[in-house]
Parts: sequence; structure tokens; C-alpha cells
Amino acid sequence: MLTISNRGETMPASPIRKLVPFAEAAKKRGTKVYHLNIGQPDIETPPQILDAVRNSDFKVLEYSHSAGNESYRKKMVEYYSRSGINVTPEEIIITTGGSEAILFGFMACLDAGDEVIIPEPFYANYNGFAVEAGVIVKPIFSSIETGFALPPMEELEKAITPKTKAIIICNPNNPTGYLYSKEEMEILKQIIVKHNLFLFSDEAYREFCYEGTHTSAMHLTGADDNILLMDTISKRYSACGGRIGALVTKNKAVLAAVMKFAQARLSPPSFAQILGEAAVDLPLDYFDSIKAEYKKRRDTIVKRLNAIPGVFCPNPGGAFYAMAKLPVEDADIFCQWLLESFSYKGQTIMLAPASGFYGTPGLGKQEVRLAYVINTTAINAAMDCLEKALEEYNKK
Amino acid sequence: MLTISNRGETMPASPIRKLVPFAEAAKKRGTKVYHLNIGQPDIETPPQILDAVRNSDFKVLEYSHSAGNESYRKKMVEYYSRSGINVTPEEIIITTGGSEAILFGFMACLDAGDEVIIPEPFYANYNGFAVEAGVIVKPIFSSIETGFALPPMEELEKAITPKTKAIIICNPNNPTGYLYSKEEMEILKQIIVKHNLFLFSDEAYREFCYEGTHTSAMHLTGADDNILLMDTISKRYSACGGRIGALVTKNKAVLAAVMKFAQARLSPPSFAQILGEAAVDLPLDYFDSIKAEYKKRRDTIVKRLNAIPGVFCPNPGGAFYAMAKLPVEDADIFCQWLLESFSYKGQTIMLAPASGFYGTPGLGKQEVRLAYVINTTAINAAMDCLEKALEEYNKK
Repeated sequence: MLTISNRGETMPASPIRKLVPFAEAAKKRGTKVYHLNIGQPDIETPPQILDAVRNSDFKVLEYSHSAGNESYRKKMVEYYSRSGINVTPEEIIITTGGSEAILFGFMACLDAGDEVIIPEPFYANYNGFAVEAGVIVKPIFSSIETGFALPPMEELEKAITPKTKAIIICNPNNPTGYLYSKEEMEILKQIIVKHNLFLFSDEAYREFCYEGTHTSAMHLTGADDNILLMDTISKRYSACGGRIGALVTKNKAVLAAVMKFAQARLSPPSFAQILGEAAVDLPLDYFDSIKAEYKKRRDTIVKRLNAIPGVFCPNPGGAFYAMAKLPVEDADIFCQWLLESFSYKGQTIMLAPASGFYGTPGLGKQEVRLAYVINTTAINAAMDCLEKALEEYNKK
Repeated sequence: MLTISNRGETMPASPIRKLVPFAEAAKKRGTKVYHLNIGQPDIETPPQILDAVRNSDFKVLEYSHSAGNESYRKKMVEYYSRSGINVTPEEIIITTGGSEAILFGFMACLDAGDEVIIPEPFYANYNGFAVEAGVIVKPIFSSIETGFALPPMEELEKAITPKTKAIIICNPNNPTGYLYSKEEMEILKQIIVKHNLFLFSDEAYREFCYEGTHTSAMHLTGADDNILLMDTISKRYSACGGRIGALVTKNKAVLAAVMKFAQARLSPPSFAQILGEAAVDLPLDYFDSIKAEYKKRRDTIVKRLNAIPGVFCPNPGGAFYAMAKLPVEDADIFCQWLLESFSYKGQTIMLAPASGFYGTPGLGKQEVRLAYVINTTAINAAMDCLEKALEEYNKK
């Protein structure tokens, strides 16, 4: 019989997108839906960098270098140096989004059957890339009660087996918004050095830190060979559709392997490399206003959430996500109900149930992730909806 | 010890690019190098489709639908219908280049340890995607003496084991330029139906056929579930840097699985989707002049090659590649010598040794691939070089 692969069968569907048909039905009924479910910012892409693409004047849309244009990698060296990250153009491989950087990292460092430790809840697509690479995800619990701080060193070490090859962190974190402290990063360094592990550090939201400063994995000293930085311009410049990211490491063997994966797929997209290169020349205060806007939104949504009876939302230090515990038994059912059966003043909200971000079945059932990618007026209207919805839902 | 993966170790380096350092050294010495080694066309990207990107006026560079913009998929339905391929927008998943279509096909249809049969010589990156997916490539010999026709049905069937899940063809072929006949395509259909195999049909060069007509795998009847079309706009519109391709199939289970892989990487590049969509509206005679140009180049290069004593080049029916057997013992060494130790009137040529396109070690050692992606004047100058080079090389 003609059958698809087990890999194709077991590949997880996107937990964020499974409610989409219900949202579409709600819209068809005339209900306005506030989208707090996905990390697609409403922030305008800086017009200067769109113009760099629009004003490009080449005649042939050629393959670029498989590692990305050299001019762009040189610019990225400049970009990283502003964050105290010292790398050379040869230590940067431009990827098709952060997604490809993660997949290349798995492919180059782990074999099928190897294990990767990830503090849960975590970015759900790590599961997908793990399935593609045949890698086994070992989640380790971080709790909403501590604001999703790094689990204690003993807990992390307990999860390490002879098959463990890497730890992934996302800092600041998607979905929790948690910003790892310098101390936590140092603990991670101790562990990876002691146990010969790779650290994959997904720093997609590096610029968006509202409490304290960002410690990049590339700031850690004495673990150069262990560390891979996974990066993307998607959120930084609201350029998600460009599909440009980067894998950065000082490990020469990893670079050589990743380069072979990069050559197989020929090159990263050319247009968005032009955009990414132009972005490094944005005024240095570019992030100030964006950060101020996200901070205002964070303050609004966290305050509103915690004011709703039975809701708990730890204050996220970065990114543009908040996790909240709701007074409901099953957030999956509640989120579907919001779209299927609820409206307030002709409006409702779409949230991401947190269960999809946990690797351990049954965890996070009362939690949801909220992406504050809409303005404060919309956030307030959305919170009005949530407040009314919980009231109505719990009266049933 | 901290080590990279076996996958990273065994991943093949690009056989086309390994001569690059020698070409760079030749250029530094002031030697002009004619590049016949890679499939990067010199043809201008149609200005209208570049303008579609340049004139786009969105404010946020958003993620597109994971399967690609619906408007683009609808346009692709129109494009395919012109080639007698009847599909719906739901049967098309837009990919990041043809590369991703091939990888998704492997991932969705084959598990690690499964086998895929590919007539050799074949596009070298199939090896890379196979390593990424843990799939085992079973090459089956096609001969330069027959112009690289499909091996006989018995030979194909002999290669089938319980682990065989798919056959890949590239039609017209890279690297051989061979255009599979309707009869050969029907033989393939019989085999895939009889043995429950998938047929991956890479049709990147569909428009470039100089002898007879193109038979798409999608023209075959009664094997809808077995067939996956892998496509790309790279060569069609000289838009290699766009990184836009497509996976097309009527198999619903495959579509559902591929969609999960597509969701994990979020979306294909947005800019080049605009370009691809505009390309479908190019005047219908757009390919006439391009085809005429490539045919003139093919006629020139094949005639010149066969006029050199000891050289044999079968007439390729499509794509923009020719394979030639040279009167040398080891084409790898000869190709390096061309760059390192030879020049004629301050010029030399870069060719792709064919060994990298064969899966069986030792095959194709006297053969090279020539990509006729330079104009006829340059081709003639390059052939002058080759003629002199072989004379000089064989005098040694």
C-alpha cells in the first residue's frame, strides 16, 4: 500500500493555527476578532528598508552565496558588535528565517535518536524541527508561579542522559516573555561545559527587553565551541515575511557542517538580504520607540489580566508575549468557545492555548499565551472581551 | 567530547563548488574564467516581474499563508493549466525554492532507512536532502552512450527492494539535459503503480525543451496518489535568488503532511511570491525568445564539443546542460588543471566534473557537465579554450 512516512504522520500540526477555522467562521458571522494568538506584529516595517528592496537595480535575480551575501554578513558583524557580540563574517551563516537556523543546528549537531533538553513551555515549532531531524525533545518544567525562571541546575542535570547533545533556550522567551538573567546564563554555561553539550540560543527578541539587560549566549566566555546563536530579523524589524535569519557560532566543525546544509539548498532569499543589510543602517534609536510601544502594551495587558478575578499573569521581562493562567479547566475548550459561542459588543478574542507549548501532556491546561501585537486601544477592548467572557463562561 | 553529528559529517559537500578556490586563484592571476560549471543563467530576469516587487506598496512585511499566498496559488493553477496540468490551489504548496519541495517530499513520504531510486547521473543535491532525511539513495545507471535514456524497466525493477518508497526523475534532466519521452513516463507510471511507489518529478526546466514535447508526471493518468511534482521559478524566469518553488500533488495525505512541515517553517519568502505571481502574467510568447536563445547555445556547444577529437556529447533535448565525455582519464584532475595550470589568450574555462553527479563511485570519471548559461560568443571562446586545453593536456 502507498503510505506516507511515519515522520509525516507524527509531525505535529501547528497548535497556534488549529483554531483558525473557528476564527474564520466567527468573522463570517460578522464578529470582530482581536488576534492575540500569533506573533505577527502590527508594527510597520521601517519604510527605509522596504525602499532598499524597492530601489534595488540589479538585472538578474541571482543565487547569493550559500552563506548569504558577504556584504550582508559584514554588516551583521557591525550589528552584533553593538550588542557586545564579537564575531567575524565567517562565523555567520545567513539562513531562511530563524526556522532554518534551528533546523540546521539540529541537523549539524544531533543525530536521529539524540536528545535535546528544552525548558517548557517552549516555542512549539522546536517539536516540528526535532521530528524532521529525528531528535527527541526532553522537556523540563518551568513554572508560571516563578514567572518561568530557569529550572534549578539539579533539575536540568537530572534530565541529562548519554543521549543528550544540546539544550535550547529562547531568550527573551517565546511563549513566556521570560528574560534569562546573567546568573541563569552562567548556570547554563557550567552545565554545557561540564556535560559537553551544545547550547542553542534563540535570540529572536533580543531588542525587546523591558526589565534589566539581555545576556546573549555569545557573551558567555570559555564555551565558544558549545554555543550556537539562532537569530532572525522577523520580529526585530517586523519583517516576518522576508524569511531571513542567521546561525552564528565559533565552532569551526559546526560551521563546516552547516555550510554543507546551506549549499544543498543553494542560497537564502536575495530580496530580504537587501532588506536585512539596510536594516543595520537604521538610526540607532530605531528600537527606542518600538520598545516603548511594546512596553506600554505589556504594562496594559499585564495590568488588565491580573485585574480579572482568578487570572494570574507574571510580568514578562521581554519579547511580546504574556502567559496567563485562567480560571477555566481547559483553555483549549475555552479558546474555541470564545470563537464559536461568545461575543461582546460584536467582538471576541483569539488566544493561543498553552497546552501546545508544553512537551509534557497535561501541563499548561489552564494557561494561554497572549501576543501583544495590537495597540493598547485594541488590547483594552480585547481585555474587556476576556473579562466578560470569563464571567459568562463560569456562570454556565 | 563535544562532536558534531554523523549526519553533519556525512553530508556531502557541493561537488560543483569544490573547484571555486582554484577559479578564484585563476582570476587573481588575471585569467578570464568562462563559467560553464553552474546553472546560474545570465538571462535577465523579466523587468516586469522585478517591477512587481519594486512597486509593491504594503506597510508590513508579514508572514504569508504557510502554503503560500492564496492569490499566488490561484495564479499557479492558471500557469499549470497552460501545460495541460489540472490542479486546484489546495493541491499546490508554495515552497522556499525547489530545494524545499524536494526536502518536504522526502520528509513526508520516506522514513529514515527507506530507499529512493534515482537514475544516475543526477542532481547532486538530491544526495544532500537524502542525508538530511536519513533516506538511502539507490542510483541506477543511465549511459552517455544512449544519451542518458531511462534504464530499461527490468533494470529499474531489479533495484526495487521492500525498503524502496520512491523514484526521482528530473525532466528535462539536470545534469544530462535528457528529455524523457511519453513512453518512458508511461513505463515509470507502470512501475510506481505496480510497486506502490511515489514518483517525485522535478520539472524545474519544463519550458526548455528543444526536441519533442514535455510530458509532465502530472499528465499521467491513474496514478494521482503516487505523483509529486517538484517545481521552481528559479530557471523558468531566471529568478534563482527569489527562492520560490512548489510541491504539487493530488495525494491528500501527502498534502496534509507537507502542510505540517510548511507550518513549522512558517511561510515561504513574501517578496518573491509577488514576483512569481506577476510572472504568470508575462506575455505568453515570453518563453519563445528565451528558448530560441538556449537552443542556439545548445546547438553551438554540442557542435563544437563533438568537433573536438575524442570528445562525445549526446544532443540534449532540454534544460540548459550538456554532458560530454572527454579524452582524459580523470575529469576531476583535468578540471582542476584547467583552472590551475592552463590558459589560452588569457582565458580558461570552469566545468563541473561529472563524478559528483553519479551515486556509484568510479562512474563518469571521463565526463563533465557544461551549463550553457553564457552567450554563443562566450561559448565559442570557451570551446576554443577546451580544444587547446585537451591538445596541450594530452601532449604531456
